[in-house]
Amino acid sequence: MDESFDIEPSEVVRAMFYGLGADGTVGANKNTIKIIGDDPDYFAQGYFVYDSKKSGSQTESHLRFGHHEINSPYLIQSANFIACHQQTFVEKTDMLAKAAMNSTFLLNSSIDKDQVWDSLPACMQKQLIDNKMKMYVIDGYKVARETGMGNRTNTIMQTCFFALSGVLEKEEAIRKIKKAIEKTYSKKGPELVTKNFLAVDQALANLHQVTIPKQVSANVKPIKYVSDRAPDFVKEVTAQMMAGKGDLIPVSQLPVDGTYPSGTTQWEKRNIAQRIPIWESDECIQCGNCSLVCPHAAIRAKFYDKSILEDAPTGYKSAHISARGFPEIRYTLQVYAEDCTGCGLCVDACPAIVSDNSDIDKPRKAINMELKEPYLEQEISSLTFFEQIDYNDRARIDFSHVRGVQFLQPLFEFSGACSGCGETPYLKLMSQLFGDRLMVANATGCSSIYGGNLPTTPWSVNSDGRGPSWSNSLFEDNAEFGFGFRLAAVKQHELAEQLLLENREHLDPLLVDQLLNAEQITESEIQAQIKRVNTLKHRLSQTDTESARNLISVAEQLIRRSIWIVGGDGWAYDIDSGGLDHVLASGADVNVLVMDTEVYSNTGGQMSKSTPLGAVAKFAAAGKQATKKDLAMQAIAYNNVYVARIALGGDPQQTLLAMREAEMYRGPSIVIAYSHCIAHGINMEDGLRQQQLAVQSGHWPLFRYNPSLREVGINPFSLDSLRPNIPLKQYRMNEERYRSLQRSDPEMADKITSDAQRVSERKWQLYEELATRATGSIAPHVELTAGKE
Amino acid sequence: MDESFDIEPSEVVRAMFYGLGADGTVGANKNTIKIIGDDPDYFAQGYFVYDSKKSGSQTESHLRFGHHEINSPYLIQSANFIACHQQTFVEKTDMLAKAAMNSTFLLNSSIDKDQVWDSLPACMQKQLIDNKMKMYVIDGYKVARETGMGNRTNTIMQTCFFALSGVLEKEEAIRKIKKAIEKTYSKKGPELVTKNFLAVDQALANLHQVTIPKQVSANVKPIKYVSDRAPDFVKEVTAQMMAGKGDLIPVSQLPVDGTYPSGTTQWEKRNIAQRIPIWESDECIQCGNCSLVCPHAAIRAKFYDKSILEDAPTGYKSAHISARGFPEIRYTLQVYAEDCTGCGLCVDACPAIVSDNSDIDKPRKAINMELKEPYLEQEISSLTFFEQIDYNDRARIDFSHVRGVQFLQPLFEFSGACSGCGETPYLKLMSQLFGDRLMVANATGCSSIYGGNLPTTPWSVNSDGRGPSWSNSLFEDNAEFGFGFRLAAVKQHELAEQLLLENREHLDPLLVDQLLNAEQITESEIQAQIKRVNTLKHRLSQTDTESARNLISVAEQLIRRSIWIVGGDGWAYDIDSGGLDHVLASGADVNVLVMDTEVYSNTGGQMSKSTPLGAVAKFAAAGKQATKKDLAMQAIAYNNVYVARIALGGDPQQTLLAMREAEMYRGPSIVIAYSHCIAHGINMEDGLRQQQLAVQSGHWPLFRYNPSLREVGINPFSLDSLRPNIPLKQYRMNEERYRSLQRSDPEMADKITSDAQRVSERKWQLYEELATRATGSIAPHVELTAGKE
Repeated sequence: MDESFDIEPSEVVRAMFYGLGADGTVGANKNTIKIIGDDPDYFAQGYFVYDSKKSGSQTESHLRFGHHEINSPYLIQSANFIACHQQTFVEKTDMLAKAAMNSTFLLNSSIDKDQVWDSLPACMQKQLIDNKMKMYVIDGYKVARETGMGNRTNTIMQTCFFALSGVLEKEEAIRKIKKAIEKTYSKKGPELVTKNFLAVDQALANLHQVTIPKQVSANVKPIKYVSDRAPDFVKEVTAQMMAGKGDLIPVSQLPVDGTYPSGTTQWEKRNIAQRIPIWESDECIQCGNCSLVCPHAAIRAKFYDKSILEDAPTGYKSAHISARGFPEIRYTLQVYAEDCTGCGLCVDACPAIVSDNSDIDKPRKAINMELKEPYLEQEISSLTFFEQIDYNDRARIDFSHVRGVQFLQPLFEFSGACSGCGETPYLKLMSQLFGDRLMVANATGCSSIYGGNLPTTPWSVNSDGRGPSWSNSLFEDNAEFGFGFRLAAVKQHELAEQLLLENREHLDPLLVDQLLNAEQITESEIQAQIKRVNTLKHRLSQTDTESARNLISVAEQLIRRSIWIVGGDGWAYDIDSGGLDHVLASGADVNVLVMDTEVYSNTGGQMSKSTPLGAVAKFAAAGKQATKKDLAMQAIAYNNVYVARIALGGDPQQTLLAMREAEMYRGPSIVIAYSHCIAHGINMEDGLRQQQLAVQSGHWPLFRYNPSLREVGINPFSLDSLRPNIPLKQYRMNEERYRSLQRSDPEMADKITSDAQRVSERKWQLYEELATRATGSIAPHVELTAGKE
Repeated sequence: MDESFDIEPSEVVRAMFYGLGADGTVGANKNTIKIIGDDPDYFAQGYFVYDSKKSGSQTESHLRFGHHEINSPYLIQSANFIACHQQTFVEKTDMLAKAAMNSTFLLNSSIDKDQVWDSLPACMQKQLIDNKMKMYVIDGYKVARETGMGNRTNTIMQTCFFALSGVLEKEEAIRKIKKAIEKTYSKKGPELVTKNFLAVDQALANLHQVTIPKQVSANVKPIKYVSDRAPDFVKEVTAQMMAGKGDLIPVSQLPVDGTYPSGTTQWEKRNIAQRIPIWESDECIQCGNCSLVCPHAAIRAKFYDKSILEDAPTGYKSAHISARGFPEIRYTLQVYAEDCTGCGLCVDACPAIVSDNSDIDKPRKAINMELKEPYLEQEISSLTFFEQIDYNDRARIDFSHVRGVQFLQPLFEFSGACSGCGETPYLKLMSQLFGDRLMVANATGCSSIYGGNLPTTPWSVNSDGRGPSWSNSLFEDNAEFGFGFRLAAVKQHELAEQLLLENREHLDPLLVDQLLNAEQITESEIQAQIKRVNTLKHRLSQTDTESARNLISVAEQLIRRSIWIVGGDGWAYDIDSGGLDHVLASGADVNVLVMDTEVYSNTGGQMSKSTPLGAVAKFAAAGKQATKKDLAMQAIAYNNVYVARIALGGDPQQTLLAMREAEMYRGPSIVIAYSHCIAHGINMEDGLRQQQLAVQSGHWPLFRYNPSLREVGINPFSLDSLRPNIPLKQYRMNEERYRSLQRSDPEMADKITSDAQRVSERKWQLYEELATRATGSIAPHVELTAGKE
């Protein structure tokens, strides 16, 4: 078949756009279709290609326009306009493969029009020359920043398309774009309309043609999706999928048993951040907050002997560790520049303000967002060195403070979650605290997508090649699924115990007794048990009896498993609420983490039982009319369930405490974690601040309910946040989900806000009563023995 | 095919037994198979035929024994032993159809051996003579009563089988029976063993041969399953099914749309009671308690003008109504003798003690259990007259007291539930209170079986031919199913309103306005609306427009629907707990009735999340190790749900109040009703007394939580029972589910009982706090407008 065979009439305008998930490219293109298609003289068509990853992956839009009916039910084979909305794609995607002769290429790049040619790879230069193409460049992000659009470049790039493609006459096109802007944004406020108008005008002023030389000037180098250091599987299978060629992979290359190599996101190096955090080693107080809140595990800390620095590359940054008595120990905070998504939460979390001109600008801190380009080379060089330094020994780390926890290796990293995601820091912390003992049953939702979507997974391994095990079953059975993990672990643990006792004399009786009686509460106790199990396995490998083989197969179960059932509010409050209730009632030693975004985030923002009174969501267009379900109180009613409400932005130390207590409690635990989300209609940079306001306003009081305290005569209910000191409205009006009701129906919004205020005040009163009651429980306690490890 | 063709070797003993569900026949036969099959010289086989009705329907056992392997995978075609364990079957079942020549017939009957022949129908007499059969009779119920076995005749009838069948040598058989008794009952206490031994001995002493005359002496009359007065469908279809000939019914005779005629249990006249309550008209205080608690709606009251008595039959009982100023009004309490199951709850509920010799006997009351036989004819004659008297006008009845409610026609009657069932009185009361406005979504469980099992249904109709509509969907979706009833009702109501407004001028504007604005809170308001709807329909029937036809089709929806979602704890606490939670959160005007037996009753007593700490159940053989889930508190946490805990035996008036309040509340309501059950291991006669002890001991505090009270400044939480004044153990030790643990593991039982005591004390403390709090709510209140009618 001749692949160049093409039956499309030449008069059809065929345009292709390469964008980043959630950068607005797809939305703008749909809008373009409406603008042109509304004109009775035109026909329009659009196809959109993208995967189920959260924002941040590549999208392709295929648009056709013409004066006759379009009958081409396939993607564009020959494009006369191609736009690349992200400069990083230039090196990763052969995006001019479909370029027609004399076609136009538009690039969004921060590189000047006179230097941009040199930044293109050789193959692209060749395509531009061979196809006699025209090329234009615009620094869309700069225009966006300067016109108050933040990171939103979609309107700017759309304007350039209209200016260059010639589908419509230029002035008419601009008029229509502005009309569409008015229609789309006027209900979100007049400022947004003005900003967009300005962006349109500035787009045209900043669009420049690039002169195309006659000769290729770059060195020829093939497109590489992953580093040469990647494992074979990643190079042969994962990279193929990344390149959009998954269909070509033969079945024989796929894992036979459904398990999949983990730790593969590290090979993606998506390079999607415009700006990255730059560490000021001299100003840093080494508190660990920035690293704790980073949704992508792209900031890490290590301490090490200063002798290591002898081999450090130029510009490698370090500081004395801020602990007395260790003059020989250095500290480095390392940013993973190519993995960072540029959300800026780390800077927001940094308490070390160096200079504060907050009247005119953001304060300068010990870590600050800077344009990536100038720092990239240095950061990559520093990172390469940093990665060679061993992670610190878990047994030597203080788990009880954020400061200590920053030194724990995250085994959840570089996920495809949205930039600034409010969920992933909780998962990362979990992976740091419980390491390779962790087993995760993941409900369907955002976390199952960024957690295990092909081709890569962020769940990773430590230097021993061991990491958490993870799986997703169904939306409606995740609690039961994780409960099954525990049942299996208990059974295998019993078998291991029995085989140990049977072989006690042949093995070392002292070792056997230690293995059987290990407490395994502190990390050092756990590390000691891991060593014992390794010794045991070594001994067993020397005797080839059936009993020994059986014991080897279950020996790992002698290390205490940390089983976490994880999901969002759509899962926990709604779809599997019956299963969750059943598992909490079981008395089994499982931990539940609910990452509560108060809405079905993954499917686009539908109302759940967790959605607060008055919040606008899909299926609640006029604001939700019922109050948020109190899952915590329902769980507390069981009296033998550990329950916590946490918010990382509200109190990181309480978050840490609750996660650890939940895990240590030998019964069911549930931790409900406030997770800010793009569905809230916030600037994601402000996520942590909104968490704090949620706590301060009484929307999200922090508490822990620990039934084991009752055994020592202490009130199990502990209220961890202060009495609300700002009105609920102050928190709410920062979020579009509440603001839009205020605009569309102010009277209703005021009434519902004051209802909600009343609700939260009564709730607070209840919590205070629980916290001061002698028994401290809304339900009494019974010691349970069954169903636990 | 020659139906008499038989290839079974003649040496095989073939025995058939006709019993009543739960009379122990099937259990005793299984035991017989074990006794004989344990002997290595014997082979044994058993087939059992019964339907999914609760106790009280007919069972057939087919047993084979022989010295060679039995290869007969079919029911017995020719029996050499046939036993009828219930005399009432004699007239209904052609049980000697399979009798072999020279076979034996054993009848359990209270009729003397010399008179019993005359009680047999002609066809049976002929079979006995023609087949040269031997016949034996025993008054098994008399032996049972005299040996302290209560109603349990199974051991007695089993002994007779062994004595007559000759499978084993008689003395050896008796020895083996006693050994089996010891094995089965010793863990239930030595008294039970002694009683059973005595029953065995007395069985043999009371077994008499009946002399069979040479000639048939009875009049030939065909077996009739239903009365001649029954509707055609019942005679042609239902009766066929009752006769076990459902397979022969052609599809064309079945309803085409899945709806089924209701009110069909009234034609069954099962006649299963040995003793029935006999009313003492002079002593009765007309309180209505007996009629309220009757699980089978077999006691009803009417008041009427004394002139009606002119046509009354001899012996018809009546009394002056116990209300001043109505000298012309008479009162009758009528027992439905053939429908009564003889449970005795009515007598237990009667407060009118006439004479109390309780040291030696039960006290004599205004209603007393008596042997049925002598009273039957009179009661049938009285009932025939009673049924002709109209039920009292609903608009004239005082719904607020048990005394008034007794006059409401039950539209749930004569179900196949166990004798003394603790669930059915709640359903009957619901049907009385809400009448034909009632729509019931019934979860799978006992109530779906006795509620709608083929061939009959207890859900009935009033004299207008109108009654509740009822359906069962799945175990796991009943809450959602009933929620759908409400959604449909709301939509159809909206349509009716719209059509009314459209036609306002053509119809009577005043009528339309009244229809639209009717309050429909009190019964008289509802009756007025029914009249208006009838008027409307009459008017509409005179105009043949599309709009009029549409309005007729939805006019009934102008009468307020009463939607009840009904089921047991297996449904509400476990299988559909997620759906129930969702529906309670919806704000919709639905009512939930949980008939809480604290165990999966229908499937044989498996543990549910409602099972109390320490109760023995299937899957909790060592006593349940977790506390009962507090469904009421979980529902109260929603703050806009009406919640009540009731126990008919604890406080009938509170039960009535809660059911009515729940229905009136224009939002979600849940009523959790203590329901004693055979699965508790109690004498069902004591069911109400156990309910009372449950309340007094603090196991089942009574309360109501009515959010609408908050609007008028009143604490919504009302604690309706007194502070517990007996230890929990006193309540528990009357029930086998607790006692058996006390016997098998006294130490564990003591510990768990004291834990449970502690639990219930803390719960009580919480309830008292809620009842005295200023706000009275564990969660605050928000006025909801959406999702309600």
